[in-house]
Amino acid sequence: MSKTFSDRLAAAILEKRSHVVLGLDPDYSLLPPEILGTGAGPTPSAEETCEAYRRFILPLLEALREDVVAVKIQAAFFEALGWKGVELFAEAVDEAQRLGYLVIADAKRGDIGNTAEAYARAHLDVVGADALTVNPYFGTDGMEPFLRRTRTEGKGLFVLVKTSNPSSSDLQDLVLADGRLVYEAVGDLVQRWGRDSRGGRGWSAVGAVVGGTHPAQAQQLRRRLPKVPFLIPGYGAQGATASDLQGLFGADRVGAVVNSARAILYAYRTGGKPWLEAAREEAAAMRRALWEVAGRG
Amino acid sequence: MSKTFSDRLAAAILEKRSHVVLGLDPDYSLLPPEILGTGAGPTPSAEETCEAYRRFILPLLEALREDVVAVKIQAAFFEALGWKGVELFAEAVDEAQRLGYLVIADAKRGDIGNTAEAYARAHLDVVGADALTVNPYFGTDGMEPFLRRTRTEGKGLFVLVKTSNPSSSDLQDLVLADGRLVYEAVGDLVQRWGRDSRGGRGWSAVGAVVGGTHPAQAQQLRRRLPKVPFLIPGYGAQGATASDLQGLFGADRVGAVVNSARAILYAYRTGGKPWLEAAREEAAAMRRALWEVAGRG
Repeated sequence: MSKTFSDRLAAAILEKRSHVVLGLDPDYSLLPPEILGTGAGPTPSAEETCEAYRRFILPLLEALREDVVAVKIQAAFFEALGWKGVELFAEAVDEAQRLGYLVIADAKRGDIGNTAEAYARAHLDVVGADALTVNPYFGTDGMEPFLRRTRTEGKGLFVLVKTSNPSSSDLQDLVLADGRLVYEAVGDLVQRWGRDSRGGRGWSAVGAVVGGTHPAQAQQLRRRLPKVPFLIPGYGAQGATASDLQGLFGADRVGAVVNSARAILYAYRTGGKPWLEAAREEAAAMRRALWEVAGRG
Repeated sequence: MSKTFSDRLAAAILEKRSHVVLGLDPDYSLLPPEILGTGAGPTPSAEETCEAYRRFILPLLEALREDVVAVKIQAAFFEALGWKGVELFAEAVDEAQRLGYLVIADAKRGDIGNTAEAYARAHLDVVGADALTVNPYFGTDGMEPFLRRTRTEGKGLFVLVKTSNPSSSDLQDLVLADGRLVYEAVGDLVQRWGRDSRGGRGWSAVGAVVGGTHPAQAQQLRRRLPKVPFLIPGYGAQGATASDLQGLFGADRVGAVVNSARAILYAYRTGGKPWLEAAREEAAAMRRALWEVAGRG
């Protein structure tokens, strides 16, 4: 049996002293002019967009190795380019792993059993990501193909619990008859789903997506789910700050990682520095701020 | 503005006198021996699998035109083959539309706003499916990119409400403090999301996925959501029969379509007939049974 995902994640966090997850959400309209080159139009073909993304992603991955512990690659932005984009998605996963990052395929898949098996195969076996984001709506039998890979192949999952967007309250914050909120009930399921994939420190390989934009709810979830690792989106461009996240990392500092996409990727737009230097500075500042907050317990 | 999806669906149902949705869930291990050819091994490459799927899907689409109103193509089984599978997925959508089918991309996507926009672009614009299955967990702002295309581009959605799998109860059947079940609350959201995309008969372009394996709950949902079209999985191989579905189609017969995958695709395995003939007979029998039940109101 492989090392569990939570042990792999903990080792990487402590080695790099970083909780920073780079969100690869490429957006053609925001790419640095140096990447686009001369003659780039506002409506590039899928091939041209893929080529530009490639020129953007590969140097970025090279440059951020010391400050970023994992890369979360957003499947949607690659799917929107057709099969060429899907090919690039797999290439980006390979390249990131070659450079020593853990890779989270951010695909938010979920379905019934045999279909979920195909999604698990697609993202965890064929593309070969280290972890995958999963939607819990189908319940336990739809989770099982993903869970099996946490137990036997060292893979990780981050299940949507409380998402960072304003309308997350529509469904996730509804109050149940037993007093729990829907997202708390989902959190309880996530905790159950992770029982059989705990690592040496007790953290499960089945984590939760918990938006940093809802700090009070995140703190409550941490108390409720003491050994479920959190993947926290919403940092930076979406508004969460390091101090909002104090207490979410656990006593051993390895219970949460924090995603930032636009604030790192497109840092050049606010700082007036060359794009790669701007991205590196932003990631380094985020690393230091989170490391400090995580150390406060 | 394009014709609304519900009007397009109603016209197709009444013209073909069919409520049958063919679920394209290709499974290499179940393909007819004639398709695999000599020398086919149990562990084909992605290319070999794609070629076999192509030889299976294209004649099937040609053969079932009279009995099948729409094709629901399951993204997972194509994604599991890597980018070559994603290329074939788009090719199957094109071919099905060329043959006059409505196409439902069964991808169950869902995310926050700008990411949901990329998924909507991927499946409804680039691949160009007529409709898409969507997961409601993110709430209204995550739905908006999909909803916009129902209002302005004649596209349709089927939102997961009550799924056909046994564990759907884990989350979907939880009881809320106001007495509703979670899936009923999701159904109420779906009804709201469909207010601005109604067709001439009053049916919304935003439909609901309602498993045929839960007949009593489906009947209650029909009363609760009188003008939300249903996409009903679970027929055939999963156990639902035509009589379980009586009352779900609405007085004008066009309020529901019913998916069957394995029972049609692999009908040759039980009937002893050539595979294409067996599939056609199964689809025709299903069409007649549903048409008769839908006529009972």
